[in-house]
Amino acid sequence: MPEVESGHCVRVLRHQPGDLFEVVDGKGWLYTVRLVDAHPKRAMVEIVERRELPSYWEGKLVLAVAPTKNMDRMEWLVEKATEVGMDGFVPLHCRFSERKEIKRERLEKTAVSAMKQSLKASLPEISEMTPFSRFIERYRDFPGKFIAHCVDDGQRRLLAREYRPGEDSVILIGPEGDFSQEEISMALEAGFRPVSLGDARLRTETAALTALETFHIAGQLKSSAD
Amino acid sequence: MPEVESGHCVRVLRHQPGDLFEVVDGKGWLYTVRLVDAHPKRAMVEIVERRELPSYWEGKLVLAVAPTKNMDRMEWLVEKATEVGMDGFVPLHCRFSERKEIKRERLEKTAVSAMKQSLKASLPEISEMTPFSRFIERYRDFPGKFIAHCVDDGQRRLLAREYRPGEDSVILIGPEGDFSQEEISMALEAGFRPVSLGDARLRTETAALTALETFHIAGQLKSSAD
Repeated sequence: MPEVESGHCVRVLRHQPGDLFEVVDGKGWLYTVRLVDAHPKRAMVEIVERRELPSYWEGKLVLAVAPTKNMDRMEWLVEKATEVGMDGFVPLHCRFSERKEIKRERLEKTAVSAMKQSLKASLPEISEMTPFSRFIERYRDFPGKFIAHCVDDGQRRLLAREYRPGEDSVILIGPEGDFSQEEISMALEAGFRPVSLGDARLRTETAALTALETFHIAGQLKSSAD
Repeated sequence: MPEVESGHCVRVLRHQPGDLFEVVDGKGWLYTVRLVDAHPKRAMVEIVERRELPSYWEGKLVLAVAPTKNMDRMEWLVEKATEVGMDGFVPLHCRFSERKEIKRERLEKTAVSAMKQSLKASLPEISEMTPFSRFIERYRDFPGKFIAHCVDDGQRRLLAREYRPGEDSVILIGPEGDFSQEEISMALEAGFRPVSLGDARLRTETAALTALETFHIAGQLKSSAD
């Protein structure tokens, strides 16, 4: 096992050779293992059983978010979004971004701990900071593409109505100063649909979590309507 | 104006006599006022215009939550719930509560600041810590009553389907150790309906916010179906 998990297993949980416990690999598998060597840095286990722990949602759910100046708010978001359930998190570098760099490893550590806390076996993929235009190109062929901008131009529809449950979906959440007009045009041209999350005025991180909750709750309601 | 708001107005924002600005009263009214006396502790304003700023949701939405040991998590919840939109927050004293006391004033301060940040005019009512049984009695005649317990007894239905938009609604969210069997029975006997928030395993504060998001998003979807 990796050093940090070995230490947790041997020093904190005080497991002894022969003990059985469960571990996840972050890729959807849950393993029942037996401790063979209680080395605090390189513990060895043998696999007794493994089973796949599927997601309880269908289709990939990706959040692409312009990070806030305050890094705590981003860590909070990654923690909560991992608990609620997401597949990917992309920090977006936008024209009006308040933060141009992020510590990817810190966000990943937060995601690992939230994954374990919420008994999931899959780790959301945490990307490096990605320039807006590169992101748009990369997701051009994604089926469900949304941009939650704040310009009240009468074109935006509610995400809860637009989202098709089961479809791989990604939503762009802008910085406090919103997306630039050029960014909005670029996204629309690439097939992103303009959406609103409702009438509340939300901070960036609250908007991102609300979008993710919308995917899940609209999914619960629409599947019940079948 | 109260001392803390006077200081903010005069010292931080550096308003001068004659300046026009907007203030809210926490009871649903937005006032345009003119500064008359720039006293840093007792600033005086005259009201130029007032208008009501109605909620964008219908029916009262109340969260009753067993507070977590970590007070930061409760402050975070009150901040986010105020942004998203709620009418009342009741800290519940349950059998397995990890925290038996709360600083109501601290939570109220958080709510005031989130109200201003999100441009709302109504302040959610933050209650004192309330014993579970007293809460149940007090809300006996509330129309929409839900308890989100974690016992998978086949009786729980999805909150998203059970909630009737527009109806005054309250949901009980338990401590990490869940409600006791006695508490669940007491709530069911009083007409609370047992609900689940979905398949995610959520921390207390995440569950409470998810319940509130469910009210709003189910409201958006159901009103669009009319």
